[in-house]
Amino acid sequence: MESLAERGWHATTMLEVAERAGVSRGAAQHHFPTRESLVVAAVEQLGEEQITELRLRADELPPGRARTPAVAEMLLDLYTGVKFRAALNLWVAASHDAGLREVLVPLQARVGREAHRVAVELLGADESRPGVREAVQATLDLARGLGLANLLTDDAPRRAQVVRQWAHMLDAAL
Amino acid sequence: MESLAERGWHATTMLEVAERAGVSRGAAQHHFPTRESLVVAAVEQLGEEQITELRLRADELPPGRARTPAVAEMLLDLYTGVKFRAALNLWVAASHDAGLREVLVPLQARVGREAHRVAVELLGADESRPGVREAVQATLDLARGLGLANLLTDDAPRRAQVVRQWAHMLDAAL
Repeated sequence: MESLAERGWHATTMLEVAERAGVSRGAAQHHFPTRESLVVAAVEQLGEEQITELRLRADELPPGRARTPAVAEMLLDLYTGVKFRAALNLWVAASHDAGLREVLVPLQARVGREAHRVAVELLGADESRPGVREAVQATLDLARGLGLANLLTDDAPRRAQVVRQWAHMLDAAL
Repeated sequence: MESLAERGWHATTMLEVAERAGVSRGAAQHHFPTRESLVVAAVEQLGEEQITELRLRADELPPGRARTPAVAEMLLDLYTGVKFRAALNLWVAASHDAGLREVLVPLQARVGREAHRVAVELLGADESRPGVREAVQATLDLARGLGLANLLTDDAPRRAQVVRQWAHMLDAAL
């Protein structure tokens, strides 16, 4: 993931990954015969780590009216780090590479559904009410857009203002 | 832009671009001595085309209450085509390439400001009211997130539902 984020899919060879992991190329290839299999395993672990982290932080969330802004901040900061950079490099590479796309599309769908489920849970959102499901989806789409805006420059000060406004809008929609 | 969208920055050499444009490599290099200078010119033109297209479509917008959903749809579909794919490939390449980042960051800021200005104009938004500026920014960030979601699969049916809900939320915020 670090190699993907720092150097991109093109430079993320098995040799590069083995060196970063401090193992031989042979040992890496014994566990992961192809780059694709390595990347699937990495994205799955990354997705699980993200969900675990969200659940852990959920225990610290304030109750009542203060909850929505706190969750909005958590969710909208979700895609601003190394994990998002790594995933972004994979998505863009997959848009030129049918083999990579084939493994990534179902994986991305699964990780996306899981992120949605956790977001609903954290927000205490009632998806049977009209528009609520789409408002939660919009939150995660917005989070990915904010991740993009943070790719080349530090967008944190502007993002904080967008997050504050979004929390109001989301609270009203929920 | 087509080469960037289809094949990525790595494969978008001067030779590739010259061939697609039906000119010699020498002629291309006479106008654009480096890939960076070519890309800056292309992104500038792409930004201008986008703004022009938005302004043209603005004339067909309905008045009154129907205006916000129509503008929301226009803006949220903005980053779902070849131009966004091309830009995305550049952003990701720039995250590994200091030279490319240096030319792209100021350009991206300028194109982003212009897109914001047109969005405000189309929505008839009053940015002196609290939260309005951030709601418009969130719309464009959301649009980029929806662009990402459309990269590997056709996300149009889901996007249509998110757009409808977003239009309600944006209308209330404005």
